[in-house]
Amino acid sequence: MSLELLSSTKVFDGRQQQYRHYSDTLDCDMRFSVFLPPLSDRMEKGQRFPVLYWLSGLTCTDENFSQKAGAQRMAAELGIALVIPDTSPRGDNVPDDGDYDLGQGAGFYLNATQAPWKSHYRMYDYVLEELPGLVEANFPVTGRRAIAGHSMGGHGALVVALRNRGRFTSVSAFSPVCNPISCPWGEKAFSAYLGADRSSWEEYDATVLVSRATEHLPMLISQGEDDEFLERQLKPNALEAAADAAGYPVRIEHHAGYDHSYYFIASFIEQHLRFHADYLLRP
Amino acid sequence: MSLELLSSTKVFDGRQQQYRHYSDTLDCDMRFSVFLPPLSDRMEKGQRFPVLYWLSGLTCTDENFSQKAGAQRMAAELGIALVIPDTSPRGDNVPDDGDYDLGQGAGFYLNATQAPWKSHYRMYDYVLEELPGLVEANFPVTGRRAIAGHSMGGHGALVVALRNRGRFTSVSAFSPVCNPISCPWGEKAFSAYLGADRSSWEEYDATVLVSRATEHLPMLISQGEDDEFLERQLKPNALEAAADAAGYPVRIEHHAGYDHSYYFIASFIEQHLRFHADYLLRP
Repeated sequence: MSLELLSSTKVFDGRQQQYRHYSDTLDCDMRFSVFLPPLSDRMEKGQRFPVLYWLSGLTCTDENFSQKAGAQRMAAELGIALVIPDTSPRGDNVPDDGDYDLGQGAGFYLNATQAPWKSHYRMYDYVLEELPGLVEANFPVTGRRAIAGHSMGGHGALVVALRNRGRFTSVSAFSPVCNPISCPWGEKAFSAYLGADRSSWEEYDATVLVSRATEHLPMLISQGEDDEFLERQLKPNALEAAADAAGYPVRIEHHAGYDHSYYFIASFIEQHLRFHADYLLRP
Repeated sequence: MSLELLSSTKVFDGRQQQYRHYSDTLDCDMRFSVFLPPLSDRMEKGQRFPVLYWLSGLTCTDENFSQKAGAQRMAAELGIALVIPDTSPRGDNVPDDGDYDLGQGAGFYLNATQAPWKSHYRMYDYVLEELPGLVEANFPVTGRRAIAGHSMGGHGALVVALRNRGRFTSVSAFSPVCNPISCPWGEKAFSAYLGADRSSWEEYDATVLVSRATEHLPMLISQGEDDEFLERQLKPNALEAAADAAGYPVRIEHHAGYDHSYYFIASFIEQHLRFHADYLLRP
């Protein structure tokens, strides 16, 4: 597993880098971005940082969050590394679809079981196993991981964290797709990737997973009340109801006037980073 | 002069808006962006904000700075409005050139005197007169203005401020083209827009203007030492030498390891906003 450095840029005294590598899991070349905080004065040699994984939404690559969220400022201050994967397998040999919400740019962080998707669309395994393995073998990071994301990536973060006890200290999401088995984006993608048997979909639905959870991971969700996808696609109320019924303490914050864009993320990313820092940096 | 609102998005409790209007100066439709800080608790009714005008660099529109600089956080906190014009006239009827550094996206903030450019390429007048007139007639702003920019826009900010005593409280620039009459970008653009007579170029050269200045405007320049355009295009040392010779107190800060990108701007935009706030918000 060799990493090719594509770019390295100084920002907030740390480094924003983009890498390319061949992914065995996805059977294609992949790009991801990393932000490494500056070394502190006290611990220059051998210093390692905990990692926040960020999963992006439909149509995004690793670059949207890197360029628009303004996360590096607070990540530098807190001493948290950021790792930002792409949102699907990519390339001429990777199946695609003309729509923005299926195929390349729309991997939905699951392992596809249906043709033609199943040979490449395994973002669940990539994000859970291959990418952390690569990151922990090649960068100055600890084994402490948190995970967060936006929209389709918020769905991915919640699902990956809820299904893997002990792998993440904490999870957060902006405007996540909370109940994909009953919204148009999810129904379309899950039908294509997972097939017609809806029982196989439930393992990728945060609302179902919360209702079954036995471990209570620290969880923060931020949702804008003027989000154009709120009612039809995101459904935080379904997750909130399931959490209430199951006694799962989810912190869901509704913000008046905010929409689905990166301006919303930029406005509250400091809060999310401080939330994760409470767990990532705990002695 | 009617303004058409294209979008309005909440960010850091303020509003990021994009407008379209017909520009008499440029004889075409133009877009610009505005950030309006949140109203403070004390002064909701009739509150007005001073304005920082931001001029962007080659190939940019009003969106690059809006999305990538992270300026809204500190502008909201300080109570400074941001106004971000496009970098040239635009449209099918506006002359263009295949190169990225001439024509649309490359207006160089001057008034062209040569065909085919002279009928539309009047960004100097647009930024100095038409746009502030429009902004001050339509938004809750005071008459206090500061100006800043990046690269070609840093050149524009310095030139507009240096030539117009009393119009701006302060000026700052990231990685500005300091001496365009003797760098490839400037020589190419000025030849096309202003013609072969180099004496006509000097009114658009910050290094020449600093050497002739009689008023000393507060001026901050930030330059990355790993900027790929530093030696060949930007030449801050020429401006620094002219300022030293003329006794003009310019604060030029050289930052090790930073390049020409928006990551550099994001890293120091708080410093620039605080610098302008000292003058914009002075009682």
